[in-house]
Amino acid sequence: MNGIVTLLTDFGTQDSYVAEMKGRLLSLGGSPTLVDITHDIAPGDVPAAAWVLSRAWRTFPPDTVHLVVVDPGVGTARRALAVRAGGHAFVGPDNGVLETALALPDAAAVALATPPGAAATFHGRDVFAPAAAALASATGRTPRGVPVADPVRLTLPAVRRAGAMVSGEVVHVDRFGTLITNIPGDLLETGATVRVGAVSLPMRATFADVPPGRPVAFVGSAGTVEIAVRGGRADERLGLQRGAAVRAAAGDNA
Amino acid sequence: MNGIVTLLTDFGTQDSYVAEMKGRLLSLGGSPTLVDITHDIAPGDVPAAAWVLSRAWRTFPPDTVHLVVVDPGVGTARRALAVRAGGHAFVGPDNGVLETALALPDAAAVALATPPGAAATFHGRDVFAPAAAALASATGRTPRGVPVADPVRLTLPAVRRAGAMVSGEVVHVDRFGTLITNIPGDLLETGATVRVGAVSLPMRATFADVPPGRPVAFVGSAGTVEIAVRGGRADERLGLQRGAAVRAAAGDNA
Amino acid sequence: MNGIVTLLTDFGTQDSYVAEMKGRLLSLGGSPTLVDITHDIAPGDVPAAAWVLSRAWRTFPPDTVHLVVVDPGVGTARRALAVRAGGHAFVGPDNGVLETALALPDAAAVALATPPGAAATFHGRDVFAPAAAALASATGRTPRGVPVADPVRLTLPAVRRAGAMVSGEVVHVDRFGTLITNIPGDLLETGATVRVGAVSLPMRATFADVPPGRPVAFVGSAGTVEIAVRGGRADERLGLQRGAAVRAAAGDNA
Repeated sequence: MNGIVTLLTDFGTQDSYVAEMKGRLLSLGGSPTLVDITHDIAPGDVPAAAWVLSRAWRTFPPDTVHLVVVDPGVGTARRALAVRAGGHAFVGPDNGVLETALALPDAAAVALATPPGAAATFHGRDVFAPAAAALASATGRTPRGVPVADPVRLTLPAVRRAGAMVSGEVVHVDRFGTLITNIPGDLLETGATVRVGAVSLPMRATFADVPPGRPVAFVGSAGTVEIAVRGGRADERLGLQRGAAVRAAAGDNA
Repeated sequence: MNGIVTLLTDFGTQDSYVAEMKGRLLSLGGSPTLVDITHDIAPGDVPAAAWVLSRAWRTFPPDTVHLVVVDPGVGTARRALAVRAGGHAFVGPDNGVLETALALPDAAAVALATPPGAAATFHGRDVFAPAAAALASATGRTPRGVPVADPVRLTLPAVRRAGAMVSGEVVHVDRFGTLITNIPGDLLETGATVRVGAVSLPMRATFADVPPGRPVAFVGSAGTVEIAVRGGRADERLGLQRGAAVRAAAGDNA
Repeated sequence: MNGIVTLLTDFGTQDSYVAEMKGRLLSLGGSPTLVDITHDIAPGDVPAAAWVLSRAWRTFPPDTVHLVVVDPGVGTARRALAVRAGGHAFVGPDNGVLETALALPDAAAVALATPPGAAATFHGRDVFAPAAAALASATGRTPRGVPVADPVRLTLPAVRRAGAMVSGEVVHVDRFGTLITNIPGDLLETGATVRVGAVSLPMRATFADVPPGRPVAFVGSAGTVEIAVRGGRADERLGLQRGAAVRAAAGDNA
C-alpha cells in the first residue's frame, strides 16, 4: 500500500468524531497520510456519499485505502466491510455506500470482526479506522475477515436508451448549483438537445459558450451531462434538485 | 515527540488565520504532521473547545502536541500556557480551555514568553504556533517557560450521585442533534431510567434498539449517557440544548 | 522545492472537487505535503481569494507551491499561469487572483499548456494540479511554459495619503465580524483617530483596551488598521461591509 487513507463521512466538522478517527489511525502505526474527501455529506445520505466516492477514488494512486462512514443504521447488526477492488481498498458499512467498488468485476469483500470494547455507536473510530490503518500498513493483500458474497448493493438511478433518446436524472447538485446527471456524454448524438424541467438546451462545449445568466448543457468533468447557468445557479433558476428527470436526444426530440 | 501537531480553534475556515498558523508551524522546522481537530468552535466558546479536546486528545499517539486557540480575551494580559500531561503536550491560552490536561495528576504548566514583534491580536500565529513547533521537534521534555502553579481552571458541570440517583446535564449537542451528557455510564444501575426535559427513557444498548422516530438513552462513545432520536434530532424533538438537566436512576425513580 | 503544496479554492467542501485535485496531486509522484488554505471563498470572489492568499503565503517556507483556483471564467480562453516570485511558486488562472505574487519585483509568469483530455470545466484537477505537482517535485526552477509579459492584474483598493490624512477602505470582514482595512498602520500619526461609517474611534493597541461591547480601532495582525467590537461583531454593530470607506488622521480630523 502507499500509506494514503482518505476519509469520507457525514460527521461534519464541529464535533470530535473526525479527529477521534484520525487519532486512532495515527496511533496504530504505519504513519498513514490522511486526506479528507469530505465530512459534509448530509446525515445518513448514503447515495450522496456513494456518488462523491465514485468521483474521487480513481484520482488517488493505486493501493490507496478509502475509509467511508455514512451509516444511518449504526448500532444495528449491519456488517462492516473491507473491499479490495480496482487496485484500491475500501472500508465502510454494508449499506451500499461502497457501491462504486462493489460494482467492479474484481471486487472482493470481507466482513470485519468487531474488536472487543468497540462502542456500538461509533464503529468509525473503533471498527473502520483500525481496519483502514491495518490495510494502509499492509502490503496490498486482501483484508482479513469472513468473505461476503452478498454485500448490500445500491440501486443507482437508471440510464435508459431508446434509439437516439437517452433518459436519466440529476444525481448531484454541486456547490455552484450545477445539476449533474448520470447521462454519459458518449451516449449522446452530435447536436443533441437536453430537456430538463421546462427547458430545452442544446449541448455546448462548456458554459462559457452561452451569455452570462443563461442555462447551458455540456459534458462535465465526470464525463456526464451537466446543466449550469453561467454566473448563476441552475438549481435555483430552473427550480430543480436531485432526482429531476433529464432526457437527451438528437435534434429537438428530447 | 512524534511530530504530530493537532489544531483546535474558533477561527472558522474562510479566513487566512488557520493557514497562517500552519505556515508558521511548517516554517519552523521539524516537518510536523498537522491534523485539524476542528476550527468550527463558536467564537469564544471555551467550554465547547475544552469538551472537544477532552474527547479527541487521547486517541492520538503519545507525545502528540495539541495546539488550542479559543480565546475571547485575546489582547488582554492573559498568559499563554504550555502544559505537559498524560504523555502529551498542550499549548493554549490560560482560560481553562486546556482543562482536560490541567486536571491530570501529572500536569506541569509553564507560561510562554511573547516573542518580540508578536501581534497583540494573533497569538495563535505568533506565540502558540512557534511554541507548538518547538515542542513537536523536541524530545519529550517539558516546554520552556516560567512554571505556573495557578492556571485558570474550567468549572465543569457537576455530576451528583445520591443513592441510586445520578444527576448531570447535557454538555454537548452534536451534528446529529444527539444530546451528550456528563453522566458516566458506569455510575448507572442496571435497568436505569433517564429523565430529561419532559421525557423518561429506559437505557438501551444503542439507538437501534427503538423504532425509527423514537427517543432513546444509551451509553455513547465517550462513555457517558446520550439521548438520541433514531433517524431524527433529539435536540429539536425534545426542545433541549446544552445545559439541560438530566437525571438517571434505577427503575422509574429518575 | 520543499514539497509543500497549499490549496486555495472556491470549491467548498461538500463536493468531490477538492479531493479530486488532491488525488491527482498525490498520484503524480513526489509525495507532496498538502495544506488547505481555504475552500470557502464565495463562488467566483477573486478579490477575496487574492486577499487571503496575500496574507497566508509568506508564512509558509521558501519554495512552497501555492495552488489557487477561483475562476468565474472557467471554460473561456483564460490562460493558466504559473508564477515564480518571492522565493515561492504560484499556480492559478490569469484573472488577477495571483496579484500578490505578480506585484513582486521578481515575478516571472508562464502560461501552462492544457494537457490532452483536460475537462474544459475542471482545470483545477486537469491543468493546475498537475502543474503544481510538477513544481513541488522540481528543484526550484521556473515552471515550463510560454513566458507571459502581460498577466491580468487585480486593481486593489487604493490607499491615499494627504498630509496627515490617510484614506482607504474595508478589504475583508473576518469570521468574527472584524473590519480589516488596507490602511497600513505605519502610515498613521501617533494619536490618530479612525473614522468609518458614522463612528470616530481612537487607535488603541488591541481591542482589549476598550470595555466589552465597544468598538475600537487598532493595527491588526496583517499590519493594517482593523475595527472590531470587543466581544461582538463590528460589521453588524456598525452596519458595514467590504468596500466601506475608512479615513485616519491625527487628532479628530479624520
